[in-house]
Amino acid sequence: MKPLGPIPAGYAAIDGELAIGGARVSQWAEQAGRTPLFVYSKELIAQRFADLRAAMPERLKINYAIKANSFAPLLAYVSTLADGLDIASGGELDMVRATGFDLGRVSFAGPGKRDAELEAAIAAGVTLNLESEAEAERALAIAARLQKQPRLAVRVNPDFELKGSGMKMGGGPKPFGIDAARVPQLIKRVHAAGADIRGLHIFTGSQALNADAVIDMQAKVLDCADRLAREAGVTLPKLNMGGGYGIPYFPGDEPLDIVAVGEALEARFAALPDTLADAELFIELGRYLVGEAGVYLTRIVDRKDSYGETYVITDGGLHHQLAASGNFGTVVRRNYPVAIASRFIADAEEVANVVGCLCTPLDRLADKAYLPRAEVGDLVAVFCAGAYGASASPSAFLGQGPAAEMLV
Amino acid sequence: MKPLGPIPAGYAAIDGELAIGGARVSQWAEQAGRTPLFVYSKELIAQRFADLRAAMPERLKINYAIKANSFAPLLAYVSTLADGLDIASGGELDMVRATGFDLGRVSFAGPGKRDAELEAAIAAGVTLNLESEAEAERALAIAARLQKQPRLAVRVNPDFELKGSGMKMGGGPKPFGIDAARVPQLIKRVHAAGADIRGLHIFTGSQALNADAVIDMQAKVLDCADRLAREAGVTLPKLNMGGGYGIPYFPGDEPLDIVAVGEALEARFAALPDTLADAELFIELGRYLVGEAGVYLTRIVDRKDSYGETYVITDGGLHHQLAASGNFGTVVRRNYPVAIASRFIADAEEVANVVGCLCTPLDRLADKAYLPRAEVGDLVAVFCAGAYGASASPSAFLGQGPAAEMLV
Repeated sequence: MKPLGPIPAGYAAIDGELAIGGARVSQWAEQAGRTPLFVYSKELIAQRFADLRAAMPERLKINYAIKANSFAPLLAYVSTLADGLDIASGGELDMVRATGFDLGRVSFAGPGKRDAELEAAIAAGVTLNLESEAEAERALAIAARLQKQPRLAVRVNPDFELKGSGMKMGGGPKPFGIDAARVPQLIKRVHAAGADIRGLHIFTGSQALNADAVIDMQAKVLDCADRLAREAGVTLPKLNMGGGYGIPYFPGDEPLDIVAVGEALEARFAALPDTLADAELFIELGRYLVGEAGVYLTRIVDRKDSYGETYVITDGGLHHQLAASGNFGTVVRRNYPVAIASRFIADAEEVANVVGCLCTPLDRLADKAYLPRAEVGDLVAVFCAGAYGASASPSAFLGQGPAAEMLV
Repeated sequence: MKPLGPIPAGYAAIDGELAIGGARVSQWAEQAGRTPLFVYSKELIAQRFADLRAAMPERLKINYAIKANSFAPLLAYVSTLADGLDIASGGELDMVRATGFDLGRVSFAGPGKRDAELEAAIAAGVTLNLESEAEAERALAIAARLQKQPRLAVRVNPDFELKGSGMKMGGGPKPFGIDAARVPQLIKRVHAAGADIRGLHIFTGSQALNADAVIDMQAKVLDCADRLAREAGVTLPKLNMGGGYGIPYFPGDEPLDIVAVGEALEARFAALPDTLADAELFIELGRYLVGEAGVYLTRIVDRKDSYGETYVITDGGLHHQLAASGNFGTVVRRNYPVAIASRFIADAEEVANVVGCLCTPLDRLADKAYLPRAEVGDLVAVFCAGAYGASASPSAFLGQGPAAEMLV
């Protein structure tokens, strides 16, 4: 038997069945007309924003990194709650345009921006987080041709990392940002070229659950920003402090203590150096805002026995849930939180492997999980499916196609 | 410095640039109108079929598993070379319909077939490779309702595995097929129910490079099929012996010795037991047929330095090349064969990291590779991109969208 990850708070049962947005999941599957299906909860997203705003300093602004989930209805909803949106491609810019969101509150990071993407962003008044000196020169040249003052921030590759993070994005050679030592010179260069300087972007890692590590990282980000601003001889109008706030996926994971993080940040904000005194201060979160608000629902098509093990075979799989299958950024596969949604409060009584319908041994949703006995037709829920699910999975694999998605 | 995988045979240079199908890759990129771009070579696919048919017994039929690459022009081309097609979903059935291929030479395997998929396959005369007793009963019930005799084969979960294979699909508890011990009873059951028995499907693993392992596996498959047929009291009209023929991806990999495999198989075929004497004998290959015939081309957007390391940043990435990035079914990331296509015969002179444009540290195409000095605008080639590339990658990730594809 292998343990399952922790089911996020906020999920209850109606008539014994998992409920989201006040209705049983089978009702959502019926309304969708098919399975598999992602269901995202407005209520849980709003609650997450409310909890976060209560814990963080009032001054701190909260950006949404749309890469986590850009399903159009969800993006439209989150854009009413977030202070800004962060994009990573021209495709994402088009998604944001469709929401009517103020493009002056959008910033664009990413190491491989094409000229056409730079041009679209500059023309729209989007802030570019510059990833290299060469990108800065391309942006300045395009802006000159457009006769438009570009909004430019510099992304820093800091000389420290977010400890214990799932993905490190600073501290050593990296494709992201500009090594801290070269940042002051670049600020001076783009300032001299007449750009509208929008400050710094310092993103050190993601998916940290340890409050002390986040507190330490945020303190270092503020110190680093101050040092670089002083060296460049500027004050910073904005500072994107990055993200890093993680969510529990796996057995033993505990939620990040955002109250502790908020208190530490409040103390730092009370004593900001001159370079940051008037800055707009942001964090940039994706997964933390929406990850736990989504559930992936897939229907059981078959159950079988093989050499004494039970297999529950669903109509979903890694083509929608690559990370849950253990094939995206993880070395050792562990179980996500998974439940038999149709029997959400039933007692566990068998150990089963929950697999997808793909003809590959990689397609596993839960290994040797202790679950209620599930039958063909039952719905299985994979939790923590609100971020990096549908859009981060190979939906065309084996001719399957995308899952349905709903915001409820 | 880290080594690169071996560039497959059949690629040459024209005017110093990588050529495919008699033209420079920059011409194909121009014709596609954009990058990134997959280019698949008809000539290399035809050569692979010819080499394989020369090496294998004349009696052996060669099926193409379309999951490896179902790009419509490629599928149409391969369907003129293959003896049969293997599908894994109703979506893939629709792709095969579009080629006009004889559906009587199509078989459908996969552990999670929905009722609608079973119905479509039975109605079309496609052979179903049954994955469980419960699936057999569903298929028989649907066939009865359609008043159509179903074509049924039984997929065996054998009690042995393909040694050294990249993915094991037999030998122990598995979601695929029916444990060998229960197969004779199921054959009797579907025979008694009036089905058209199409024999057995025994698929033990994929991506093996060791000829002795493949020879051993094929011998065991024939023995297993004979034993099960005798126990069931039938002769076998067909036997799908599975695949397993691998291609070299990584440093040190050597091509599979298909001459040795073919000679061993010839010897076995000369002394087949009565149960197999009249059987149509198949192998089912995907990656082996098309994998080395495809190249992924992506253009360099930026180059930069970080803490003394050089980064070459492309407009492609893991959203089209998940496996090459090291994030699909691999534990330790190793470099695929990668080259600066624009400078294909130039001497290597620098160590560079080739990365994609996605804002994630997972997006790596080549780590610390010794390459010619590449500039912005150059094309990078990732080889072995003909199988499990475009369709097995999360193309929607970060709003990027699919790559262009061409068969030349």
